[in-house]
Amino acid sequence: MEKTIAVLPGDGIGPEVTEAAVKVLKSIAMRYGHTFHWKFAAIGGAAVDQFGSPLPTETVEACEASDAILLGAVGGPKWDQNPAEQRPEKGLLSIRKHFDLFANVRPVKAVPALLGSSPLKEDIAREVDMVIVRELTGGLYFGEPKRHNENSAVDTLVYTRAEIERIVDQAFEMARSRRGKLASVDKANVLESSKLWRKVVEERKAGYPDVEVEHMLVDSAAMKLITNPRAFDVVVTENMFGDILSDEASVITGSLGMLPSASIRSDGFGLYEPVHGSAPDIAGQNKANPSAAILSAAMMLRQSFGMESEASAIEDAVMSVLEDGYCTGDLSACGNKVISTERFVEKVIEE
Amino acid sequence: MEKTIAVLPGDGIGPEVTEAAVKVLKSIAMRYGHTFHWKFAAIGGAAVDQFGSPLPTETVEACEASDAILLGAVGGPKWDQNPAEQRPEKGLLSIRKHFDLFANVRPVKAVPALLGSSPLKEDIAREVDMVIVRELTGGLYFGEPKRHNENSAVDTLVYTRAEIERIVDQAFEMARSRRGKLASVDKANVLESSKLWRKVVEERKAGYPDVEVEHMLVDSAAMKLITNPRAFDVVVTENMFGDILSDEASVITGSLGMLPSASIRSDGFGLYEPVHGSAPDIAGQNKANPSAAILSAAMMLRQSFGMESEASAIEDAVMSVLEDGYCTGDLSACGNKVISTERFVEKVIEE
Ligand SMILES: CC(C)[C@H](C(=O)O)[C@@H](O)C(=O)O
Ligand SMILES: CC(C)[C@H](C(=O)O)[C@@H](O)C(=O)O
Repeated sequence: MEKTIAVLPGDGIGPEVTEAAVKVLKSIAMRYGHTFHWKFAAIGGAAVDQFGSPLPTETVEACEASDAILLGAVGGPKWDQNPAEQRPEKGLLSIRKHFDLFANVRPVKAVPALLGSSPLKEDIAREVDMVIVRELTGGLYFGEPKRHNENSAVDTLVYTRAEIERIVDQAFEMARSRRGKLASVDKANVLESSKLWRKVVEERKAGYPDVEVEHMLVDSAAMKLITNPRAFDVVVTENMFGDILSDEASVITGSLGMLPSASIRSDGFGLYEPVHGSAPDIAGQNKANPSAAILSAAMMLRQSFGMESEASAIEDAVMSVLEDGYCTGDLSACGNKVISTERFVEKVIEE
Repeated sequence: MEKTIAVLPGDGIGPEVTEAAVKVLKSIAMRYGHTFHWKFAAIGGAAVDQFGSPLPTETVEACEASDAILLGAVGGPKWDQNPAEQRPEKGLLSIRKHFDLFANVRPVKAVPALLGSSPLKEDIAREVDMVIVRELTGGLYFGEPKRHNENSAVDTLVYTRAEIERIVDQAFEMARSRRGKLASVDKANVLESSKLWRKVVEERKAGYPDVEVEHMLVDSAAMKLITNPRAFDVVVTENMFGDILSDEASVITGSLGMLPSASIRSDGFGLYEPVHGSAPDIAGQNKANPSAAILSAAMMLRQSFGMESEASAIEDAVMSVLEDGYCTGDLSACGNKVISTERFVEKVIEE
C-alpha cells in the first residue's frame, strides 16, 4: 500500500518520540512492502515560534494532503504566558475541530512487566484492559456563549443529538469488537445534556443486542476507576468528563509512558499521539520513553490503514523488549536494564 | 451552651447512622453540660413518600429554626424512575441552594489502621491528609439556560466574581489554619470561567502571604490524587470538578465509610453529612459503619458551635475504637473484630 503520513513533532520530547515512531514505521514499510510518504509540519509552541500560530495554514494543508496524522506532544513553560490564541494547546484544539476528529480513543492496558510502577495495589491493577472513548469536538470546550469579564464568566455545554449519536455508535462498535461491555458515563441527576445523552444511549442499544450497557454517574466512575478498574471494558463519555477520566485512568496501571491515543472521524482519517505530555524537563536528552509514540503509530496502521498484522507486529515487539527487562528511565519498575530512547527503538526494530 | 440541631435521617442506612451520631452527641451534651434540642424532619425518598416532595416545607422550617443540620443520606432504587422534581437528590440540591451552603468541605485523612483497605499501595496512601473545598451553589449545577429537547441540550457554567471570591477566601483561611498549601484546580486552558477563577485566586493571594498557592489543571489533579495524594493540603475548585475530584479522593485511603463532610456558609450555619451514600443493600441490618456520621457530628460541633474539645473527644474516641481493632464489616482491613453498628457506637461512647 501507499500512504501519506503527516508528522507533527511539536514540543519538548515530541520530536524525539515521533522520530522513534517514524523509524519503526520505516522498518515496517520495508518488511511488508508498503510505501509511506512523509509530510513534516509544525504545531504547538514550535509553530508559534516559527510561524506565529500554533496551527499554521501550511500544517493544515499538509494534513489535508495526508491519510493520517502522527503527533508528538505540545506545550511547555516557554509559551505559558502567551495569549490564548498563541498557546500550544490551541493548536491541538484547532486541529481536532478543523478535521472534525470527534472520537478520542484511549486504550489503557496493564503491562505485566510494569505493574510495580502502578500506584494501585497490584491485585487491583492486574489485567486492567479498557478503552475510553471521549467525545472530542463538543460540550464545554466549544459551546457559545463562552466569555468572561471582570465580574462574571460563562461557558456553555451544548450537544446536539447527532453529535451524541455518532460518538455513542463509535463506542458500541468498539464494545462489540471487545468484551461486549459499555459503560456510559454522565451526570444525568444534574445535567440536561446528560439526560439527552442517556436517552440516546438507551435508543441506540437496540441496534447492539450483543452489548451490555451500564449508565454510570461521573463521580461514581471516578471512584470505580480506582477501586475496581478491571470492571471496565469500553467507557464512553462527553468531552470534559472524558478529559478528566481518561487522565485519571492513564495513571492507574503505572504505564503512562506507554499509552497511545487516536482522535478519529467516521471515514477512518485520524490523528495519533501519545497520551503523555511534552516533558520539557527531559527533552533532548535521549531519555524519553518512545513506546507511546510507537504504539500510537501502530494504532494508526490498524485504524486508519487497516494494517492489522503490521500493527500487531509493532505491539508485540514493544512488549518483548519490556519483557526482556529493558526500558527507559521513566519506568521505575521494569528490570534494571535502563536504556536510551535510541537504543530502545533499535531493540523494538530488531524484534 | 444551648443549641438546636435539625436531624434529617433520609434513606437507606441514613436513619441508623444518624441515630448513632445523635447518641454520641447526647453523651457529649451530658459530659460537657450542653443542652441540645432536636428537630427531626424528612428529606429525600422518605420525604417523597410521606409528603410528595424531597424537601418539604416542614423540613425547611425545621432547619430554619435550628443552629445546624445533621443529615444521613438520600437516594435508592425505589425512587430512581421518579421525575426530576421528585427524586431524592433534588432534596439535597434544594437544601444547599435554599440555605446558600456554598462551601462543601471534605477532609480526607489516612487512618493507619485501615491502610490495608486502600486500593493504593500503602506507601502512597500513608499520611494522606487533605481537605477538598468544593463550591456548591454555582456553576453547571444551576446556570441557565438549562434544558433539553429531542434534538439538543444545553447546560450553563456561570460564575460571578463574588461567588468565586467567597469560596476562594474560605479555602485560603482553611489552608492558613493547616499546612499553608493551597491547590486551586481549574481548566484555564479551555474554560472562560476558569480564567476568571484563576484571576481571583491570584488577586486574593496577596491577603494570605503565609499560604503557598499552586494552580493545577483538573486533568492533572485527577492524576496526582492517585500518584501523589500526599502532596495536597487544601484543594479548592468549582462545583462539578469538586464533585468528581472529591469522590475520587474519597476512595484513595480505603476509608470511605469514615469520611465526614460539611456544607457551610460564612456565618457558621451548616449541613453535616457522611460522604458515603445510602447503601440500600445493607440498610436496617445493623451493619453500617456509623463513623462518617459520627465524625460529621464532630465537624458540626467544631465548625458551627465552636466546640473544639468536644469535637476532638469524638474524633479521638472513633480512632481508639479502630486502633483496638474493632470495626464494622465494610472495612476489610481492620483487625478481625467485626462488630455491629450499635456495638460500635457503644464503644465510641465508652471511649
Ligand atoms: C491541552 C488540553 C486542551 C487537552 C484537552 O483538555 O483536551 C488535553 O488535556 C488533552 O486531553 O488532550
Ligand atoms: C446527588 C448529587 C446531586 C450530588 C452532587 O452531585 O452534588 C452528590 O454527588 C454529592 O456530591 O453530594
